[in-house]
Amino acid sequence: MQTSDIIGYIAAVLTTTAFVPQAWMTWRCKRAEGVSLSMYVIFIGGILMWLTYGILLSAWPVIIANIVTLMLASFILAMKLIYK
Amino acid sequence: MQTSDIIGYIAAVLTTTAFVPQAWMTWRCKRAEGVSLSMYVIFIGGILMWLTYGILLSAWPVIIANIVTLMLASFILAMKLIYK
Repeated sequence: MQTSDIIGYIAAVLTTTAFVPQAWMTWRCKRAEGVSLSMYVIFIGGILMWLTYGILLSAWPVIIANIVTLMLASFILAMKLIYK
Repeated sequence: MQTSDIIGYIAAVLTTTAFVPQAWMTWRCKRAEGVSLSMYVIFIGGILMWLTYGILLSAWPVIIANIVTLMLASFILAMKLIYK
């Protein structure tokens, strides 16, 4: 595996797991007023496009990372819609 | 340009611009209590890795998208540290 691949995988793990503390915080506090609705709507749109990109290129790390991010971002969006 | 490239560019634009409404909301409200500090610390670490990945591969769309995201995420992190 090349150095760039390793850095790419670390990058994917970090930008995916970053959403875990936000999801946890929103769930725990049952409040989401500080979270931007527009951000998560646009972001989920972007993640769906990255997922399509990964599928078209059969790039499994891109597919897996974006499925996980999609789940986390959708969870935060749902909390935002429920708790306002 | 291939279809996958076009989808990749759209994905990059969406996941980058998604942070604009969050940055604007945090700035306007002068409050960041609903934003997770851990999320932005981990996320910025990931973006720096994506930037390194882009530089290693001389992939300009990756470099440009991540410089913009880095600026927006750093701005949100700074607001979080200032306004708590």
